[in-house]
Amino acid sequence: MAERSFAQRVFERLRTLDNPTVLGLDPDLGRMPAALRAAAAAGPEAAGRVILDYNLALLDAVQDIVGFVKPQVACYERHGLAGMEALAATIRAARERGFLVIADGKRNDIGSSSAAYAAAWLGGAGDFDADALTVNAYLGWDGIKPFVDACVARGRGIFVLVRTSNPSATELQDLELGDGRRVYEAMGDLVAAWNAPHVGGSGVGGSGVGGSGYGPVGAVVGATWPEQARKLRQRLPGSLILVPGYGAQGATADDCAASFDERGEGALVNASRSLMYAWQKEGREADFAAATRDEALRMRDALRLARDRHLGTG
Amino acid sequence: MAERSFAQRVFERLRTLDNPTVLGLDPDLGRMPAALRAAAAAGPEAAGRVILDYNLALLDAVQDIVGFVKPQVACYERHGLAGMEALAATIRAARERGFLVIADGKRNDIGSSSAAYAAAWLGGAGDFDADALTVNAYLGWDGIKPFVDACVARGRGIFVLVRTSNPSATELQDLELGDGRRVYEAMGDLVAAWNAPHVGGSGVGGSGVGGSGYGPVGAVVGATWPEQARKLRQRLPGSLILVPGYGAQGATADDCAASFDERGEGALVNASRSLMYAWQKEGREADFAAATRDEALRMRDALRLARDRHLGTG
Repeated sequence: MAERSFAQRVFERLRTLDNPTVLGLDPDLGRMPAALRAAAAAGPEAAGRVILDYNLALLDAVQDIVGFVKPQVACYERHGLAGMEALAATIRAARERGFLVIADGKRNDIGSSSAAYAAAWLGGAGDFDADALTVNAYLGWDGIKPFVDACVARGRGIFVLVRTSNPSATELQDLELGDGRRVYEAMGDLVAAWNAPHVGGSGVGGSGVGGSGYGPVGAVVGATWPEQARKLRQRLPGSLILVPGYGAQGATADDCAASFDERGEGALVNASRSLMYAWQKEGREADFAAATRDEALRMRDALRLARDRHLGTG
Repeated sequence: MAERSFAQRVFERLRTLDNPTVLGLDPDLGRMPAALRAAAAAGPEAAGRVILDYNLALLDAVQDIVGFVKPQVACYERHGLAGMEALAATIRAARERGFLVIADGKRNDIGSSSAAYAAAWLGGAGDFDADALTVNAYLGWDGIKPFVDACVARGRGIFVLVRTSNPSATELQDLELGDGRRVYEAMGDLVAAWNAPHVGGSGVGGSGVGGSGYGPVGAVVGATWPEQARKLRQRLPGSLILVPGYGAQGATADDCAASFDERGEGALVNASRSLMYAWQKEGREADFAAATRDEALRMRDALRLARDRHLGTG
């Protein structure tokens, strides 16, 4: 039996919860309540335990309103093996609760090494088995093909870095090519070409099915660059867009809406610090997870309003 | 006491052994002798154990002739937590034996996430603490600065992907810019600019000291593109160059020599499969590590001859 495509699974979650929010899980012990910080100081195993417990509390708190989580792999690797154990347990717990998990690893290599990363993150088994992975395509198709093969075989997705949210994204990504395109537009065109053969996906097809116009090769387009995002949305009609930059990085819900398609769908909006450490703003040490839930509700509502404005019905 | 710079440590190893070879440690159970393959089939822990034992045998076999190792992180991640344990133990064992360890992770992100990767791989402590890390700079300086800070603080190095060894490296890296440069040349110029403030390094300076003309920000330039490599060597006078592609990917020792400086130094040449699985060519299951040593001696001698030709004395 063919699994449903990643895009179909994304649309199902999107429509059920009417919420494109992705909860970024970027553990940072320095931003956790003092009691947890103290507990984590006992050593790597203790730190791993605190990270996992914090994540579990957040997952439980937003399970009925948020459909997607994005663990930032760097934040786990920095804690070594104990951190990677916490990551594995976080991925498992999130999937058990019905979240789609986007591993934010920005992995990249060529040939058999890319295939090894694909097996690690999109392999259908193992400790780090996620629903999707962020990847960097500086190396071209040799590096991306093994990921796409895994996506097609197992209903998984990738998000290729096209236009990142940081200020110095301009340094390489904005360089103008001889043909008038920018480097990030050329990257977008590569993504569109890689995605095109797989748009529509397998299974219960037909025009009414959510996600049927989308393929497994998505793009990362920072919300901090809404003008570029609007152009990229046109260039990438069949690609899901993962939008970082909301909240702590300063982008608004309307900035994020630039990546929605003409039905107000097709984009997932990530917030990490503003959700994960929402307790800090109001000093809610004792109910940090509830503070995250409250902020997630505010974000959801802001994104719904922005979507309605995007559709011209607001 | 200021640690010696990464470049100084590289030159010390280079000159002591008169050998720029990097042994790539890319575990692939399918290419190991049948008895090991069978042992690894018992489960992830068994696989991790086999990978580590295989690596340790190779390290012991080449310790007196090869100065550098490059574990390919993807090949460990694919085995999950057990694989990451094998990686941690491999890094530790290699450094204890005096090898400089280049973790081939091609990591990339921005801000605090890049800082987390830098802490994981170049942090001076922890399970994955290496001497250098490969990184991908598509995101620009925001993403690279945390790595450079770690390099400067702790005598570590990074190698930025500039021109990769694979066929489809051309797709993005060869695009021509409006100013006539190629994308990979623009990346090279960024690397040179990031490296320049740190050339010379700390410590026992003076013109006679090995590595004193080099900084911590190196470049990856595939040996499969010798013409581009010669141009990049000019553009990157203070950057160590990590050269993949020798052996299994088809590049010759002379191709690799295109990345040497005018003293026949400044480049490290990696071979992974051709060294690691040298036993396959001659069916030497029983003494696979000795087969690797024999091939490493052949590679060293070939690189010395190519260097002499490069210097015009051969």
